[in-house]
Amino acid sequence: MNAPATPQQPPALLALDWGTSNLRAFLLAADGTPLAERGSARGIRQLAQPGPAGFEQALAEVAGDWLRDQPGLPMVACGMVGSAQGWQEARYVACPADVATLAGQAVVIRTAHGPLHVAPGLIDRPAVGGSQPPDVMRGEEIQIAGALALQPALAERACLLLPGTHAKWAQVQQGRVTGFRTFMTGELYALLRRHSLLGQTMPAEGEAGTGSDEAAFNAGLARAGQAGPGDLAHQLFGTRTLGLTGQLTPQGQADYLSGLLIGHELVAGLAAIADDHHGTPPLALIGDPALLARYAGALRALDHAPAALLGNTAPQGLHQFAQAAGLLTQGLAA
Amino acid sequence: MNAPATPQQPPALLALDWGTSNLRAFLLAADGTPLAERGSARGIRQLAQPGPAGFEQALAEVAGDWLRDQPGLPMVACGMVGSAQGWQEARYVACPADVATLAGQAVVIRTAHGPLHVAPGLIDRPAVGGSQPPDVMRGEEIQIAGALALQPALAERACLLLPGTHAKWAQVQQGRVTGFRTFMTGELYALLRRHSLLGQTMPAEGEAGTGSDEAAFNAGLARAGQAGPGDLAHQLFGTRTLGLTGQLTPQGQADYLSGLLIGHELVAGLAAIADDHHGTPPLALIGDPALLARYAGALRALDHAPAALLGNTAPQGLHQFAQAAGLLTQGLAA
Repeated sequence: MNAPATPQQPPALLALDWGTSNLRAFLLAADGTPLAERGSARGIRQLAQPGPAGFEQALAEVAGDWLRDQPGLPMVACGMVGSAQGWQEARYVACPADVATLAGQAVVIRTAHGPLHVAPGLIDRPAVGGSQPPDVMRGEEIQIAGALALQPALAERACLLLPGTHAKWAQVQQGRVTGFRTFMTGELYALLRRHSLLGQTMPAEGEAGTGSDEAAFNAGLARAGQAGPGDLAHQLFGTRTLGLTGQLTPQGQADYLSGLLIGHELVAGLAAIADDHHGTPPLALIGDPALLARYAGALRALDHAPAALLGNTAPQGLHQFAQAAGLLTQGLAA
Repeated sequence: MNAPATPQQPPALLALDWGTSNLRAFLLAADGTPLAERGSARGIRQLAQPGPAGFEQALAEVAGDWLRDQPGLPMVACGMVGSAQGWQEARYVACPADVATLAGQAVVIRTAHGPLHVAPGLIDRPAVGGSQPPDVMRGEEIQIAGALALQPALAERACLLLPGTHAKWAQVQQGRVTGFRTFMTGELYALLRRHSLLGQTMPAEGEAGTGSDEAAFNAGLARAGQAGPGDLAHQLFGTRTLGLTGQLTPQGQADYLSGLLIGHELVAGLAAIADDHHGTPPLALIGDPALLARYAGALRALDHAPAALLGNTAPQGLHQFAQAAGLLTQGLAA
């Protein structure tokens, strides 16, 4: 006898993570359980036609059948789709903010498939009279909401670290993002590897073969730990001279560069959150597992072992956002 | 009656400043007086044919007529022509070194036009057991020799700063370069402007029009002065957010970025030379006048007004090098 099949829950939400290069669509149950997921290359810079029609077409391509099967299915989105270059702008909301703040400031786009609720980004404005520039995020605020739903213990007080092209360090207190900092670590690495003198003696990215050189990564990390203010442009050149003098292989140069850049980010990020909080709060990492492994190892080496490592928390965050926006009624969930 | 014409001195030296992208040829008198100058696009990466024949052809193109008119004219060169990718490698010489050290370690290439004496580059090796990578220069050591010939007062004790793609900060004591640091400031600026998110909202480089925004440059400089260790990747993102929030124009963003990067270099460079010397030595700047003006202004703002601003000192340096190599005999000079 077969065990009775687990009854599939009905779809209650279409959740879109819509960035510059990619569009990810998640079909979720009322309690947030993922039912299906699809990826598309129709990021906001990759639309087949300009203007709203391009967005409509991308939405129809990625989820048209789901929407035909479930007329009136609530739809939510986060990311660059809500930027000034997106479908319709959802202006930045000031910190401190939680998912209820985001839901309260959502922009509702009238699409051919019904209303689409788009989450605004966050802005961290400096204190009045301060000389610090503002900081912004768009998309990560939803990932943070998802992380707090998955790990409620983080909501009291934590720093959520989202490594990547523009890494974000977000401080959370009592469920709200109170402030954050962006580090252009991933973009600097890509620029230096692809376009600089340093990259000329490294293997092509994604080249099959040697695997990463952990000792070189750790040497870059240790070197970053010796940095004084302003030292990055000098320390970068060491990647070249260690190659020239045969102390780093081509692959080792790439890993040393990665260690240097991640190390600089960790030195500055940890100093900032220690200042802000009079002690370092628990750290949670969100993002790509391979990149998180590098950050986690580096943090452990600095005696700041992360409290949690989380994958893509955007679907959970979009579910939280939809719930806060009142889109998940008992009627639909039943 | 006309005044008697100043008799033209006879050519005594062909001096080549031969880099990656360009080749500059100077015809000099025995006392170093410039008689003629030519530029060519035949840098070592721009040769018409591979191998020695490409170098021979470039030399003949730029100075063949001079060499036919003056058979046996001594020839000297500096720059990437002496690198592993050049005509023949002139290996790095360790600091401390002066122009006599360079002449003693010159590599002599047998060309179709006679011997070409190529200056080696310099290497600054870290103390044994230190974790600091080595540093290298190739070409700047000759510019430094030229600067010391033009301003002998600097030879006793000075820091010579050569801004550019890979800026050099060289410490000089009693005529010798005792150590130096490279900062990839110019390359970072070019990468960020041409290939990063930040550059997307700046005017194209060299675009006619608005001129530079000095207030934005100074704001970037001031921001750099607030940097703690590791802060560059975070501070860079401020260029974008100040644009997003309308506090910087497109041109202002470019100048703010320039101020940030130059400011970081100055903060680190000044700290390093103060450490090394127990007090800051006189600073002399060598290079492109427009770039030097930016650096000089920034240094004045930091209470480190430069002692001297010098243009291209490579011809004078090559003359010093030739003299030290014994190539400027009285017979030829007469």
